Amino acid sequence: MELTGRSIIGFRQGRGDTELFYAMNPVSGESIQPGFVSATLEEVDAAAQLSEQAFSDYSRVPGREKAAFLRKIASNVEGIATKVIERAGTETALPPARLQGEMARTCGQLRLFGGVVDDGSWTTARIDRADSDRKPLAKPDVRSMLRPLGPVVVFGASNFPLAFSVAGGDTASALAAGNPVIVKAHPAHPGTSELVGRALQKAVRECGLPEGVFSLLFDRGTDVGTQLVKHPMIKAAGFTGSRAAGRALMDVAAARPEPIPFFAEMSSTNPVFILPGALRERRDAIATGLHASFTMGAGQFCTKPGLVFLPAGKDSDELTEKLRTLSSQPARFHMLTSGIRSSYYAGVSDRSSKSKIRALAQAGESPNDTGFCASAALFATDVRTFLNDGNLADEIFGPATLLVERTTPEAVLEVARKLDGHLTATIHGTDEDLRQNSELIALLERKVGRLIFNGFPTGVEVCHAMVHGGPYPATSDGRFTSVGTQAIFRFARPVCYQGFPDHALPEELQDANPLGIWRMVDGKMTRESVSRSVAA
Amino acid sequence: MELTGRSIIGFRQGRGDTELFYAMNPVSGESIQPGFVSATLEEVDAAAQLSEQAFSDYSRVPGREKAAFLRKIASNVEGIATKVIERAGTETALPPARLQGEMARTCGQLRLFGGVVDDGSWTTARIDRADSDRKPLAKPDVRSMLRPLGPVVVFGASNFPLAFSVAGGDTASALAAGNPVIVKAHPAHPGTSELVGRALQKAVRECGLPEGVFSLLFDRGTDVGTQLVKHPMIKAAGFTGSRAAGRALMDVAAARPEPIPFFAEMSSTNPVFILPGALRERRDAIATGLHASFTMGAGQFCTKPGLVFLPAGKDSDELTEKLRTLSSQPARFHMLTSGIRSSYYAGVSDRSSKSKIRALAQAGESPNDTGFCASAALFATDVRTFLNDGNLADEIFGPATLLVERTTPEAVLEVARKLDGHLTATIHGTDEDLRQNSELIALLERKVGRLIFNGFPTGVEVCHAMVHGGPYPATSDGRFTSVGTQAIFRFARPVCYQGFPDHALPEELQDANPLGIWRMVDGKMTRESVSRSVAA
Repeated sequence: MELTGRSIIGFRQGRGDTELFYAMNPVSGESIQPGFVSATLEEVDAAAQLSEQAFSDYSRVPGREKAAFLRKIASNVEGIATKVIERAGTETALPPARLQGEMARTCGQLRLFGGVVDDGSWTTARIDRADSDRKPLAKPDVRSMLRPLGPVVVFGASNFPLAFSVAGGDTASALAAGNPVIVKAHPAHPGTSELVGRALQKAVRECGLPEGVFSLLFDRGTDVGTQLVKHPMIKAAGFTGSRAAGRALMDVAAARPEPIPFFAEMSSTNPVFILPGALRERRDAIATGLHASFTMGAGQFCTKPGLVFLPAGKDSDELTEKLRTLSSQPARFHMLTSGIRSSYYAGVSDRSSKSKIRALAQAGESPNDTGFCASAALFATDVRTFLNDGNLADEIFGPATLLVERTTPEAVLEVARKLDGHLTATIHGTDEDLRQNSELIALLERKVGRLIFNGFPTGVEVCHAMVHGGPYPATSDGRFTSVGTQAIFRFARPVCYQGFPDHALPEELQDANPLGIWRMVDGKMTRESVSRSVAA
Repeated sequence: MELTGRSIIGFRQGRGDTELFYAMNPVSGESIQPGFVSATLEEVDAAAQLSEQAFSDYSRVPGREKAAFLRKIASNVEGIATKVIERAGTETALPPARLQGEMARTCGQLRLFGGVVDDGSWTTARIDRADSDRKPLAKPDVRSMLRPLGPVVVFGASNFPLAFSVAGGDTASALAAGNPVIVKAHPAHPGTSELVGRALQKAVRECGLPEGVFSLLFDRGTDVGTQLVKHPMIKAAGFTGSRAAGRALMDVAAARPEPIPFFAEMSSTNPVFILPGALRERRDAIATGLHASFTMGAGQFCTKPGLVFLPAGKDSDELTEKLRTLSSQPARFHMLTSGIRSSYYAGVSDRSSKSKIRALAQAGESPNDTGFCASAALFATDVRTFLNDGNLADEIFGPATLLVERTTPEAVLEVARKLDGHLTATIHGTDEDLRQNSELIALLERKVGRLIFNGFPTGVEVCHAMVHGGPYPATSDGRFTSVGTQAIFRFARPVCYQGFPDHALPEELQDANPLGIWRMVDGKMTRESVSRSVAA
């Protein structure tokens, strides 16, 4: 399969504009063949039109067929796994083991959503039966369930070239809900995107679905993404990326004549609170775990722990020293893009220049650096300085973290009260620590989507209970998650049918419950069939 | 209980500014004592601060105590029902029977949400158990449930002085989820608002809850509402009102440094499609039902049917004639406010002036009118004119409707494709009509929150399956409803606990399931207790 460098518009190939852009190899800093062409605004419109045309059919495809489609995507992607991982490695410098894991996660996600729609209970079917004898007014038959929103735009993320990209979680959840998807490929891994996109396009064909179910548009800049979010046929979007880009697109979505749901997962510093008991018992293990967590994937995870709060004392000093040693190892990382590397060094340099910040391990640029090379940075400051400088809570995307020392129980509560929204907060403690810090837990619960006890925030389990979300600016809307099966709820809305005869209802709401799904009938959960009215 | 004319700020009475405003009697057009004072911006801040202070306690109140609180509000309001209905009648000109029904609905809603939080299953608890043997990585214990958002602002609606006002559905659902509430009273029924607000304040005291759980602010203008939506301590808002006001506040919420969920229920014309079979079988009953529905409450319902599509033919002509006769009766309605009356006549006058619109019953102003008097207006046009004039689909708030005649099956589909978002769409048909119009149903499903078969859109059942929502501009976000138990989901967000010991988890997520709620455990719905890990 040769790369074409062209967008995928349904079953057609895009022509694009004339200028080529290239993926860059982060190790060498050199461009990779072939050149890719940005989609034109006419192609944006063509993809949106196809997507809208596909909606009426695709939104009515039964759950079991959507499940087969999602599984087909997974097997098609697995069928070219070697090629995909090889290309992704060249485009991202992520090691093969990581990419193999991400490939497994991506296909696992697709199959997980396959299971969700195969079962069908996700549609949150509710039935309130008629009661013609009710006084003063007869009660009507009222039934509701979730239905898809319409064409959804997904923005591929730089840091997960598979799991948050073309066939990643946003795409899987939007397709599972019954929405056609247009992916705006991330320009840092266009080759990976094209390979996966063609596997997805093939699945659309093989499953006999309308071509507009999937398109993939390339763009070296931001025009295509902005135009997609503005397009009147687009009904929702999912985004993972920087706060600046996410907020700009949120604002575009909110300013439309018809505002649309725009879910952005943007920025998070993922504070870690080390409590005294844990520090005594597991000092070294925490240091090793923290170092692995903040440098994993060159620190380019949305869940990277970028703030670590430590009480005063000998154990903290030794933990700090151990972290300093680990962080000073001459390991060099390769950042995903030249821009990410520049931003990382700008953030690190800004932090180094502050008078009350100690740089325990330096991330200076070196003349021997090749490509988008960078090294870890470990900073330390005291909790008072932290509380007085709001910028210290900002995310530095890359392998850097800030130790905030000499915390007291009171100062920790003050920190927690002042925190903005984050994806996660982590507590290392003993059971006794937890009991003594219930107020801290209660405060953190307001600020994050996920609280982790005695673990590390990186490594997000894809499961039913996962919440990869959190109050702004972690995301655009803390009521949703972009990881786990609940991610599907971003792309669906309830529709209510009043007084409908059985044959005109969707299967999910029919009396006999032919799909055997869980439903709320007159306020009670059941998988049983129902009689037509309360009186019957 | 004498009215004070002052805002309620927790357990305190507002002082307000010096200028007084008055409720107006729609029948006489005269002002009603006493005068009310608008809250000051300092009072807005004081209410927000109190609300934020109350959150940490109130958000942790067990479900059964929140249920007792909601029931106490209901019984306190019922305890002053006569006074409330009398005052509301004077302020709104709504007849006693309607207000009695609305009182019953209001208290019923509070008790319904009481039942929801007493049960606790609404929290959508999910548990994915640990599996330490999983390869390549051990699976962590991950649990999630819905938690409240923070202080919520509720805007009282003019057209439901009880059920969508101080202790209405927005307040009930926000309180049920565990959020303190600040109500911005609608200036058209301040006396009703104060009475209900004091009953609610009394319930807060009687239940031993923190005072900031509830405040009620008066304002003759828009400053208080805008400042509330801008206040950094406010985390969500619920609004029912005009599209202009709703969109302005949506934009304020979206432009905040920290954007917040803002649910606005705004405007809807609630199209009604009369299909040939129904027209033959039930022509007169449909005419009578439509007339009652579009004039009920002086047409001041968000679900008023404002568009009626009729095929050509004798039955349509007779239905139209019957509607004309009913609408020409000299019945005079009293609109809620002078402003609503002016807008109604402006809309009616604009429609009358169009060359291809026939005014079958006129709503001209009369020299004998007293107060905010108005009469019904019935217009008719043909479907081509309708399709060529986008403004004809706009809502006229009041007792007016537009018959769109000489539809064909093709034209009806074209209409459905062009429709904006509405709260409801109604189909009158036989089973055979339904079978022949499945494409129409499919198109309408995309445009509305609720589809009604052989009924009328007014009269919204408060139940588990109800959806009072719909795509913009019906609401700000079609993924939610403001009526029915699912309204609680507007004001809650999922929080995930990873690796937490049992004692540190909320009761809803503890192994033993002490509340006996429905939970999703490893992907399966159950009310059973669980063992700690998959292996156990």
